[in-house]
Amino acid sequence: MSSLKIRIYFEDTDAQGVVYNSNYLKFLERGRTEFLREIGYDQKQLLDNDIIFVVKKVSLDFIKPAELDDIIEVRSKIFGVKNVTFSFYQEVLDSNGLKILTADVKCGCLETNNKKPTKVPTKLLNSMMEKSNGI
Amino acid sequence: MSSLKIRIYFEDTDAQGVVYNSNYLKFLERGRTEFLREIGYDQKQLLDNDIIFVVKKVSLDFIKPAELDDIIEVRSKIFGVKNVTFSFYQEVLDSNGLKILTADVKCGCLETNNKKPTKVPTKLLNSMMEKSNGI
Amino acid sequence: MSSLKIRIYFEDTDAQGVVYNSNYLKFLERGRTEFLREIGYDQKQLLDNDIIFVVKKVSLDFIKPAELDDIIEVRSKIFGVKNVTFSFYQEVLDSNGLKILTADVKCGCLETNNKKPTKVPTKLLNSMMEKSNGI
Amino acid sequence: MSSLKIRIYFEDTDAQGVVYNSNYLKFLERGRTEFLREIGYDQKQLLDNDIIFVVKKVSLDFIKPAELDDIIEVRSKIFGVKNVTFSFYQEVLDSNGLKILTADVKCGCLETNNKKPTKVPTKLLNSMMEKSNGI
Repeated sequence: MSSLKIRIYFEDTDAQGVVYNSNYLKFLERGRTEFLREIGYDQKQLLDNDIIFVVKKVSLDFIKPAELDDIIEVRSKIFGVKNVTFSFYQEVLDSNGLKILTADVKCGCLETNNKKPTKVPTKLLNSMMEKSNGI
Repeated sequence: MSSLKIRIYFEDTDAQGVVYNSNYLKFLERGRTEFLREIGYDQKQLLDNDIIFVVKKVSLDFIKPAELDDIIEVRSKIFGVKNVTFSFYQEVLDSNGLKILTADVKCGCLETNNKKPTKVPTKLLNSMMEKSNGI
Repeated sequence: MSSLKIRIYFEDTDAQGVVYNSNYLKFLERGRTEFLREIGYDQKQLLDNDIIFVVKKVSLDFIKPAELDDIIEVRSKIFGVKNVTFSFYQEVLDSNGLKILTADVKCGCLETNNKKPTKVPTKLLNSMMEKSNGI
Repeated sequence: MSSLKIRIYFEDTDAQGVVYNSNYLKFLERGRTEFLREIGYDQKQLLDNDIIFVVKKVSLDFIKPAELDDIIEVRSKIFGVKNVTFSFYQEVLDSNGLKILTADVKCGCLETNNKKPTKVPTKLLNSMMEKSNGI
């Protein structure tokens, strides 16, 4: 599992006084990006090589709101791997460990040039699975 | 059904050259907001009165990317109503009518002050259903 | 002069209940983009050819806030042209024509490949100046 | 002086492959917010009491672009104080200490209820000045 702490700023809030819904997708991607970085991959390096990851499906469950100045935690792990896709389970927690949001995010692996689906490299997949064990 | 055309600007894109995933949640809310406006409700008016709508659950299916300068269309209709929640089915289409994204968005109705769930006003619900007929 | 009407949505606001400051830079770019489109240029076409425009300097004067559901107007015109740069004067107005914000935006023209400054094409400059006359 | 490190994610970039211009205003506010937090004030606390800070004027000088995966540094200090306003000088630096952007940001202090200008509390001003010394 990977864990990332995020501070909530004015930019993240809206006129209802809480975090605006679309910003959780940003926080979730920050979490997945740090998950990948922790196993040795950064986005720019993947982009410069021949692979990009894209989001295929997302399910979000909004449980309670986050607010200005809060520090939230994004937890990310892989829970499913197929031929050309892989899926993250992610949680956003408040500073007491209470759930703010849960998410299933299915990603696809594409060739950078032609945007065709391609196999996730085996080494990367193995690292993903290893990182997700024992949560 | 409600239809809203949206132009894609640099702000909506990312370094992959296409629309960044979280921005679709913004487009979808613009669509729901215009749906409500077309049946006589605006967000500020709802906020000033005693009701806010919040997003409870979202499922997104990313089918193909939108790009800079594209004009996309967001189509919105109600497909389910319960006691204190209601659900939108929304589609984002390209200028040829091809699907870019589909979404199920479950919303809840809260009292502004105490943030407790409350019944969607009957008049509003009836207008929503009427607007969604015959699609 | 070019004029663009923009609706304010929840995404544009923050917990102070008004439009968040960075979003005005988005609105201003939408205005400049439509200015260019009206004289026959779109951003993607410029990007696909060998030119990109970048913002070099910005001065913003925040006069009064915009709010949820407002319709604001962005007015844009060229007020200065040099060898490899050009400057926009832009205003954001409320629905009564009162100023919300004024901006000076200095843009530079770069070659897409090497990101070196390059002359703004004469035909484009002439069209910009013509569009800005008689305001 | 106050220093804040920020990681660049996909959300921050645009189709030109670099950080989108409006996002620097977000980074600058994160910097000012952390400056205030370091001297004992957080935004929510100020908002819950009777004071809000608003941005009155901004001048931005874009020197070079930041890119995906970069870690940038926002440096913030007070350089001018008047009766109801105060001004920040802020720099955004790359990981080699080279300037990406410089900014002058003039802020005003308002009463939360009536949005009228009010004096910055003396204790807060003194802490701001002290924090900004010796840079």
